[in-house]
Amino acid sequence: MAPVEAVVLVTGSELVRGGRLDENGPFLARELSTRGIEPARISVVGDRPAALERAVAECLQADLCITSGGLGPTHDDRTVEILAKAAGRALVLDESLEEEIARVVRGLSQRFRRPYEEFEAGVRKQATIPEGATSLGLAGTAPGLVLGLDDCVVVVLPGPPGELQRLWRSALETEPVRRVLASAQRPGHRILRFFGLPESAIAGVVERAGGEAESLEVTICAHDLEVQVDLIAPAGAEGQADRIREVLREAHPDALFAEDDRGVEEIVLDLAREQGLMIGTAESCTGGLVAGRLTSVPGSSEAFVGGVVAYGNRVKVDTLGVPGDILERHGSVSAQVAASMAGGALKALGCDLAASVTGVAGPDGGTRDKPVGLVYLHAAGLDVAHGLELRLPGERDAVRRRAAASALHLLRRVLEQTRRKGV
Amino acid sequence: MAPVEAVVLVTGSELVRGGRLDENGPFLARELSTRGIEPARISVVGDRPAALERAVAECLQADLCITSGGLGPTHDDRTVEILAKAAGRALVLDESLEEEIARVVRGLSQRFRRPYEEFEAGVRKQATIPEGATSLGLAGTAPGLVLGLDDCVVVVLPGPPGELQRLWRSALETEPVRRVLASAQRPGHRILRFFGLPESAIAGVVERAGGEAESLEVTICAHDLEVQVDLIAPAGAEGQADRIREVLREAHPDALFAEDDRGVEEIVLDLAREQGLMIGTAESCTGGLVAGRLTSVPGSSEAFVGGVVAYGNRVKVDTLGVPGDILERHGSVSAQVAASMAGGALKALGCDLAASVTGVAGPDGGTRDKPVGLVYLHAAGLDVAHGLELRLPGERDAVRRRAAASALHLLRRVLEQTRRKGV
Repeated sequence: MAPVEAVVLVTGSELVRGGRLDENGPFLARELSTRGIEPARISVVGDRPAALERAVAECLQADLCITSGGLGPTHDDRTVEILAKAAGRALVLDESLEEEIARVVRGLSQRFRRPYEEFEAGVRKQATIPEGATSLGLAGTAPGLVLGLDDCVVVVLPGPPGELQRLWRSALETEPVRRVLASAQRPGHRILRFFGLPESAIAGVVERAGGEAESLEVTICAHDLEVQVDLIAPAGAEGQADRIREVLREAHPDALFAEDDRGVEEIVLDLAREQGLMIGTAESCTGGLVAGRLTSVPGSSEAFVGGVVAYGNRVKVDTLGVPGDILERHGSVSAQVAASMAGGALKALGCDLAASVTGVAGPDGGTRDKPVGLVYLHAAGLDVAHGLELRLPGERDAVRRRAAASALHLLRRVLEQTRRKGV
Repeated sequence: MAPVEAVVLVTGSELVRGGRLDENGPFLARELSTRGIEPARISVVGDRPAALERAVAECLQADLCITSGGLGPTHDDRTVEILAKAAGRALVLDESLEEEIARVVRGLSQRFRRPYEEFEAGVRKQATIPEGATSLGLAGTAPGLVLGLDDCVVVVLPGPPGELQRLWRSALETEPVRRVLASAQRPGHRILRFFGLPESAIAGVVERAGGEAESLEVTICAHDLEVQVDLIAPAGAEGQADRIREVLREAHPDALFAEDDRGVEEIVLDLAREQGLMIGTAESCTGGLVAGRLTSVPGSSEAFVGGVVAYGNRVKVDTLGVPGDILERHGSVSAQVAASMAGGALKALGCDLAASVTGVAGPDGGTRDKPVGLVYLHAAGLDVAHGLELRLPGERDAVRRRAAASALHLLRRVLEQTRRKGV
């Protein structure tokens, strides 16, 4: 059986002009991958008719084509029109859809206190769909669509990520999408994730264990100081995947921190929750990123009390109780201040374990002794006092992201220790 | 003169499996757009040779092709090899490049305390490049490359965003890239950004003002409650662009908040700095996102003191001084608690203006009276007390992002008022 070919087409001029990161391509890629279909490509194109027409025509060559964006009420939302043309289908006004959209729009016109007439042309446009297409229901005012062609199933989804995700779930229930997904074969997938090792150290181990033998696919990818190994094993390659996993486990037991794809923030929260512990943060250069990652997880309030973003020195002194003379003597970027911030957070926030971050994120503020990228971390509480000095490569964003990731891994290591000790 | 066609090719299996958002495509798109070249497409493909070969061959059809990723030391980094094949160039070991990479790797091997031999095969691989290619210098251990073919200039950049950005700046200095960029014509570009209006209200105004006449390109794009209008005016369409800008300014003067692409966090910091004011935050459901956005801006410490992430109620009481009986009576998601949090932050942080956020981000915790998406904001200080109740659509991430954006816009509005009043 030939593998199912899928492509994702993301549209939007703001995306090809670089105004925004695309979340929809990755979301759909993940959804397809877990169902055994690795997309052949994700194409991002603008709203210009010529580029869009070419891209849509190409996508219709695949077995499954999923589009995102271009469904809005304005003239530059062209996906449906261009799809109809490429598929050789007429555009027809769906009157029940028109009534459904009009109901939503009446609410909108009240909320924004704008006359309904202002929206009318948009409603008609959004209710006009290719002949034979089925509505997936509305997200905002935009209907998602499924269109089954002879050789290709097309799923048309709106651009806003939350709305796209909801309508994608509806699309999964439709007969054409179920049929195309049913023909995919889901390969075995093993994940190993390491922290604090170079990619090369892992690549060498994989090579020596036989590498990509027996149609096994191995990818090794470094990101923010983590290295993820994916072993994708079609039928027959499961043995080789297990062999490599075993060898990797034995080669780097201390650096291996996960065999699933939970973010380190989820791992930290799970470890804290199972030990009945509450976590807090004290952040300077990361300015809330550690707290932001922890609170991105639903239910994080069960194990995270909160944090202090002690950006200015005055907040370090007043809120976290860092002694002024320590700041004076060692400077705000120092192991001593990191320790004092973590201890202060423990008291101020009333938590069991607190992590602190202070560093030079750049682009300015670096000196010879304390260059951009110098970061101090500290964990306090649970009879632990664990400090780290890091020299992180990269520019402001990268330093902040890597410092936040390192702080989360520090919390993880402390919580793994306390679990082992049964504190 | 025909417009320059450019394409961006982003490679990485982790990207087509949806493991991560791509930043490089948007960065390169932005770089090209500001130079008058809107990329025809950004293609994201995996590391599988067949898909990669097809994508590389396609990209060589354009005048300028920029690739990201696939330059690492491991076997699944295939960009250079596939490019050489598609371009019909032999692969050659560049010995001076080999020595340059080896110097970096010796440092790495010490830092990670791993033997140099472990890295040796990777060094040789990374120093092997297509005949005629020029090195842009190293980023990490990966050389960026420029390769001038008969009809296409190829720029080969590494995957990590900071490294890609640095080598892109080197690529801009090379003769082949300068030549292809010099032939681009930079169109006029006007930006108008609105907050708190539906797209349709803006689309109607644009239509009535003549829309995309005279080859003007207009895109209208909504994101996290902001609507951005881009007017892209090739020579001859400048008059129509100015006309539409004028009409939009007059139609929605209160909603118009910027005519450039600074993030609202930058606008807030600029407004505070010019008035000599310091800002602080008190966040519950956004968990540090507002502080995180403010501190993403270099130099933010001049106008941002810090914040409290008061996720649990105990932190609201102990650190922000929210009275227990207000929490009891109104619940943590209430206008009263938002007001008390903002007032408390003002005192605890010693700032001039503080914004607070409390809400139900979901997926759990919603009730009939207080559903997911209900968010209260408050600004205190400068003799202002400004509260807002929002009902935000979307899931956890979207609610948090939109609440953070709304809090930043609240700060912006307050600071615009105080500037007008000359407080």
